[in-house]
Amino acid sequence: MSRIITLLTDFGIASTYPAQMKGVILERCPSARLVDLSHEVPRHDVRTAAFMLASSVRAFPEGTIHVAVVDPQVGSARRILAAESAGQTYLAPDNGLLTVVLGGETGQGAAAARVVSVEDRSLFRSDVSSTFHGRDIFAPVGAALACGAALENLGPEIESIQRLDVPAPRREAGAVKGEVLYVDPFGNLVTNVTAGELTESELARIVVYVGGAVIRGLSRAYSDVAAGMLLAYVGSAGFLEVAVNRQSAASRLAADVGTSVRIGFEAP
Amino acid sequence: MSRIITLLTDFGIASTYPAQMKGVILERCPSARLVDLSHEVPRHDVRTAAFMLASSVRAFPEGTIHVAVVDPQVGSARRILAAESAGQTYLAPDNGLLTVVLGGETGQGAAAARVVSVEDRSLFRSDVSSTFHGRDIFAPVGAALACGAALENLGPEIESIQRLDVPAPRREAGAVKGEVLYVDPFGNLVTNVTAGELTESELARIVVYVGGAVIRGLSRAYSDVAAGMLLAYVGSAGFLEVAVNRQSAASRLAADVGTSVRIGFEAP
Amino acid sequence: MSRIITLLTDFGIASTYPAQMKGVILERCPSARLVDLSHEVPRHDVRTAAFMLASSVRAFPEGTIHVAVVDPQVGSARRILAAESAGQTYLAPDNGLLTVVLGGETGQGAAAARVVSVEDRSLFRSDVSSTFHGRDIFAPVGAALACGAALENLGPEIESIQRLDVPAPRREAGAVKGEVLYVDPFGNLVTNVTAGELTESELARIVVYVGGAVIRGLSRAYSDVAAGMLLAYVGSAGFLEVAVNRQSAASRLAADVGTSVRIGFEAP
Repeated sequence: MSRIITLLTDFGIASTYPAQMKGVILERCPSARLVDLSHEVPRHDVRTAAFMLASSVRAFPEGTIHVAVVDPQVGSARRILAAESAGQTYLAPDNGLLTVVLGGETGQGAAAARVVSVEDRSLFRSDVSSTFHGRDIFAPVGAALACGAALENLGPEIESIQRLDVPAPRREAGAVKGEVLYVDPFGNLVTNVTAGELTESELARIVVYVGGAVIRGLSRAYSDVAAGMLLAYVGSAGFLEVAVNRQSAASRLAADVGTSVRIGFEAP
Repeated sequence: MSRIITLLTDFGIASTYPAQMKGVILERCPSARLVDLSHEVPRHDVRTAAFMLASSVRAFPEGTIHVAVVDPQVGSARRILAAESAGQTYLAPDNGLLTVVLGGETGQGAAAARVVSVEDRSLFRSDVSSTFHGRDIFAPVGAALACGAALENLGPEIESIQRLDVPAPRREAGAVKGEVLYVDPFGNLVTNVTAGELTESELARIVVYVGGAVIRGLSRAYSDVAAGMLLAYVGSAGFLEVAVNRQSAASRLAADVGTSVRIGFEAP
Repeated sequence: MSRIITLLTDFGIASTYPAQMKGVILERCPSARLVDLSHEVPRHDVRTAAFMLASSVRAFPEGTIHVAVVDPQVGSARRILAAESAGQTYLAPDNGLLTVVLGGETGQGAAAARVVSVEDRSLFRSDVSSTFHGRDIFAPVGAALACGAALENLGPEIESIQRLDVPAPRREAGAVKGEVLYVDPFGNLVTNVTAGELTESELARIVVYVGGAVIRGLSRAYSDVAAGMLLAYVGSAGFLEVAVNRQSAASRLAADVGTSVRIGFEAP
């Protein structure tokens, strides 16, 4: 039985670093199925990695192992975490990367998670570098998990992990104040406001203010508006998004991660 | 028995969208073999996707399923097509993407194709978004095909599909007028003129005019000319191409998709 | 039993050329496991390809087949080599690409290698283009190796191959003069000086001069220094490297492949 291992890193596909991780995994667990989540996380950007991971995992079957290595503190005393939550297994540095999947403020995560600190060095490569734990620790430990190692064999269970200060939307004077969490390659703006945070009535009367633009009402599909026009919609990861049909909203609105988004409501 | 599924999208490898498609496919058909055709089709560029698909499929074995999602009208009433032609299966939006593989004017396609409109919603994911049919429709339907579903089970057979206006080369006053169809990452210019459209005698006397340059005669290999020199040759997809040995013809000639190419012939 | 085939090219992931190679491989050896080493070698840069290959192979299990196609002379009389060394198999044009893995001056390679010239045309695709040997020769021959063909069946054994003039570090007046071999996507500078070339005492007293900067002492991990500070360390491929914690050393120092690096030593 082959289990899936996904890889999420900031190594860049121009480098051979992702491939070196795969070589180690396939040597130790030849039946593993490898899927690149992305190797183009902006360098050292743990927060974006946390969002990319959380917005992807629901597309994978139970038993998938997600190995996420955005790890500017590699080689320091920071811990490495393995966690199980909602049928998925995670391996990541203890730097906040698992904040969202393990139950962050945005409500994406599962309540009940088991987390261990990865400490069984017998699972590591024999010669661990201090700058490439992706190859020397994450890959062999991920392979061990894929080929049957139990979470509790990796190290002691722990209670408290590093968490990012993920920005939560705030209610204020009849409006919701949020911000852009992620800009996708189309230039679509993914906000930190989920549809679940708004009532049916509010969704029906929504007005989105971002980058000087005002968007009234929700669309379903990009092509609901003419090419070049702005739209707001509930995106495929459950978040409110803003796009320009066939163009880039990020360019049009000079918006980026962190840009403020205000959500108001027309009078009923 | 594992079948190959190729993926061709404009999602960009920086995003996790291709990976989300793979998660869904592997959940539903774990034996599928996944190959990325490319995820770097220029955004919304259906015509380039049609060329990239057509120039690739002959490298794949019979029974391969090609899932192509360049789909600016996602979520609208546009249909989704599944087609079989010359032993290969295709899944794509009905926006012209299959024009070339199903027999366009360039003569790349097969005459006899069966095409159905994908309508059996029981094959889709239970919760279909209106902006990411790649994950919610194309991936599960591709998985169903890979694991044995027959084309006719997907929906009703149809006669007429959307076709792109693929530019055909024209004969005019003893010359052939064509244009650049595709620029590859080396800056090589792939034209819409196939070798089959010219006689042996014409090929022997060819003169190519493009971007102000004049290239006399066909070369076989890049290194037939000195580094930095222009050459014309019949490329690996059967089209006439123009390159600069070890450099970019696109940069040298300021040429791009759509640039005119004129083919004349020396007097015999 | 499935064997791993890695692919290293300068084709670019935007193109479908890597996918076309994979289609051919999977048609002829469906059990092969494919791993992309990288398709973003700088165009025509055989020397960088040689380094990327050599720094990656030790992460792969015995029996892996590495197919490396950076081949500006494709279609000319240059030979194609297949080689076995230290349990790994290589397939590459005879242009120096195998210099480092087969025992270059940097000491990365194995002494004992068997090398043949690939000449058995019955293994090639039936219609070999003169511009895409990756698809028409390298892919099917790689597939043959993965599915059991022996090296000696591919063609005659040969003694002498093309070698790059790989720059070796030089000792000079109490210092070591080297240069930058490779810049990774983080902007880390990989030099041609290995730790093994320096004594323990020298490593303890090291001072690195590069791009006008002076770095005293070796660090273990990036985070040993404050964000934005320079460090020198022995990297994961065994070479001396220079980085800036959380930033790009290449940008900071305006350094690139070929930039001089001088290594001096503090008085004991």
